[in-house]
Amino acid sequence: MSSIRIYNARILTMDAGTGIIDNGVLTTRDDRIAYLGSSDKEPRERSYDREIDAKGNLLMPGFKNAHTHSGMTFLRSFADDLPLDRWLNEAIFPREARLKDGDIYWCTKLAVMEYLTSGITACFDMYLKPYEIAKATEESGFRCVQVGGMNNFSQSLELQEEWFNELNGKNPLTSYMFGYHAEYTCSKELLEGLSKLAHKYGAPVWGHNSETASEVEGCKERYGLTPTEFADSLGLFDNGGGGYHCVYLSEHDMDIFEKRGLYVATNPGSNTKLASGTAPIARLLERGIGIGIGTDGPASNNCLDMFREMFLTTGLAKLREKDASAVDADKVLEMATAGSARAMGLTEADVLSEGKLADLIMIDLSKPEMRPLNNITKNLVYSGSKADVKLTMVGGKILYEDGRFNIGEDPEVIYNEVDKVIGAMKDI
Amino acid sequence: MSSIRIYNARILTMDAGTGIIDNGVLTTRDDRIAYLGSSDKEPRERSYDREIDAKGNLLMPGFKNAHTHSGMTFLRSFADDLPLDRWLNEAIFPREARLKDGDIYWCTKLAVMEYLTSGITACFDMYLKPYEIAKATEESGFRCVQVGGMNNFSQSLELQEEWFNELNGKNPLTSYMFGYHAEYTCSKELLEGLSKLAHKYGAPVWGHNSETASEVEGCKERYGLTPTEFADSLGLFDNGGGGYHCVYLSEHDMDIFEKRGLYVATNPGSNTKLASGTAPIARLLERGIGIGIGTDGPASNNCLDMFREMFLTTGLAKLREKDASAVDADKVLEMATAGSARAMGLTEADVLSEGKLADLIMIDLSKPEMRPLNNITKNLVYSGSKADVKLTMVGGKILYEDGRFNIGEDPEVIYNEVDKVIGAMKDI
Repeated sequence: MSSIRIYNARILTMDAGTGIIDNGVLTTRDDRIAYLGSSDKEPRERSYDREIDAKGNLLMPGFKNAHTHSGMTFLRSFADDLPLDRWLNEAIFPREARLKDGDIYWCTKLAVMEYLTSGITACFDMYLKPYEIAKATEESGFRCVQVGGMNNFSQSLELQEEWFNELNGKNPLTSYMFGYHAEYTCSKELLEGLSKLAHKYGAPVWGHNSETASEVEGCKERYGLTPTEFADSLGLFDNGGGGYHCVYLSEHDMDIFEKRGLYVATNPGSNTKLASGTAPIARLLERGIGIGIGTDGPASNNCLDMFREMFLTTGLAKLREKDASAVDADKVLEMATAGSARAMGLTEADVLSEGKLADLIMIDLSKPEMRPLNNITKNLVYSGSKADVKLTMVGGKILYEDGRFNIGEDPEVIYNEVDKVIGAMKDI
Repeated sequence: MSSIRIYNARILTMDAGTGIIDNGVLTTRDDRIAYLGSSDKEPRERSYDREIDAKGNLLMPGFKNAHTHSGMTFLRSFADDLPLDRWLNEAIFPREARLKDGDIYWCTKLAVMEYLTSGITACFDMYLKPYEIAKATEESGFRCVQVGGMNNFSQSLELQEEWFNELNGKNPLTSYMFGYHAEYTCSKELLEGLSKLAHKYGAPVWGHNSETASEVEGCKERYGLTPTEFADSLGLFDNGGGGYHCVYLSEHDMDIFEKRGLYVATNPGSNTKLASGTAPIARLLERGIGIGIGTDGPASNNCLDMFREMFLTTGLAKLREKDASAVDADKVLEMATAGSARAMGLTEADVLSEGKLADLIMIDLSKPEMRPLNNITKNLVYSGSKADVKLTMVGGKILYEDGRFNIGEDPEVIYNEVDKVIGAMKDI
């Protein structure tokens, strides 16, 4: 049984808003939070494997990355500044087709490293080779919810069912949800099959949804319905789920999101870099629709940085609404932590409280961009960066601390293996 | 005479595009670059005060922050998520009025710390108390070009002339340019006086320009001219200069920018957070108008982070143009380094070459977001962050290295003094 005690901390639990416990203590027992509160009420009944003086720094829930394709790290900065169709067809697809067994394992490990530096403690990952992804994240100690990316060209209903059964309930760090890539890459029959599968297990379903205006137009031409309406008409959302991106949702789409309790995973960095547009976050909030924040993959974003995404979530909403008060920092921090966690089914990792998973980070408040401490939430959302992440803990285990990784593998080995993956494709 | 030799470096000079010298060496002599090139051509005639193994990391010109109000650090996160008029009138102005002698000295030092962590080696600073700013930056070893922020309520022609004469030519780290706050805060007579002053010295003039749509409308109502047309009609731009923000420039305004050789200092972070709008960067580039990038002040942005500004410069342009290929990474990196330097009159600090000022940074290429090294420029612009800045050198002196500051003052002292500044205003 492992245990850690962190004392002399400011604690932002996100459990009831953004109030902060001063001079707080948090202890862990195995992968859970055992005690959380002020130091004077702490039960001092036992010893710990390690005690850490937080020196007044901030403990808070880790960020959860609600949409990503981790394994695409090998394509970072390989094909930027291109229109979306050329980017996909000329740069991405031919290289993904050349991936060999084991490649995604290494590329996922590189992504995990970056997540940890950004205070991300879990990701919602849609990519190829689910067993390689699970191996990479489990070995690293990282929490990963995988989701199907089935389409007409890869994956299948049979494989999704296998993965659903094999990747749920085996390792506490790993889970799996049903999903489809997007309406425009899936036949109606395939989606009907997925709906049956979801009903069989009473499970939610996720997919890319309304990322671009042309995607919505194409769906309307094919079916006379928006992507949300079409998916709902097939019963895909009968047990909940949600959509990534959701830049172009109609009010009727939002009715469906509300009625089915669907979540939006917003990806402002990717939507910006690919010139897709700006999601209607203020309106979604107004309607009470659950929102998480994701980075999307490192080939489109190109980084896996929740601080960038948080600033963009509020900033782009302010631009869209022409209102500097739109989507304030408290709401954004809620989305990046508890909002994403709930979208991903990680209800045990949404906030910091006793009995919840010890998935948390320490923010260094002694960096210049964090001073003065006029408002810590606003500092985090408006001036925070990766440089402020001092420690990242997943399931009670410290995986990143003061710039050093504790993920069972030397970073240089990971870098070299990923170099080999992209190096083998230079001839394309 | 001080000297440093940095070897085993990748060097991005920005001198002729974004090509990289592998296995490069850079040496300094006092505040200048003495040698820069491949290791095999290096003259090995003398010893150095210090030799640094760059271990393959990247040397490049420091970023220059082309618009800021450094001393506003005390107001960071004090008043966010407010409409612009309430932000200014209720939150900012009453507190600025309470600043005491010495306050801006400390608040500027806090800003310098943050600049250094973000790889910024010089700033173009418009704020109160120019002598305090000069003292703070010179003591820190930081390069600062100050610029007048004269308006109907503060500063004056006499003071600007005094500062112009006192702050130019005395300390190699410090210079001063003429400037006005904005058309809407200055009477016509005041601007006419500034034009005379600029003509007397043959000097360029800078001001806030077309930051919001309402600013442009107001100027048209008052004078039948845009802010650019109006300033130009008074002869303010006869010796060059430029404008901050420039979100709402007409084609005719751009004609004036072209004709007078004016620079745009774009501030995408601030324009986003205050919901002001998105500058026409793609069009400005197309017309060959010089562009620098600035953070604006820490009360509006709220951070002083060139990596955020670079991503926003390209990202918002892509959204505005609905084109993922708009304003590519090479152009953005050029703006943040040489573009800003030229705008600020720092032609000796624009690129890395022998004889130029040794204002440079080292980027840690061993961070996960920098791997693989498919394209270093794109890595910097699309996935770079403060966490990647390993070393910041200004005028041949290392001011920041591996998280530690060398600015002649303990960070904790600076933090405490800034806490006192804002602490004395909690009653407002």
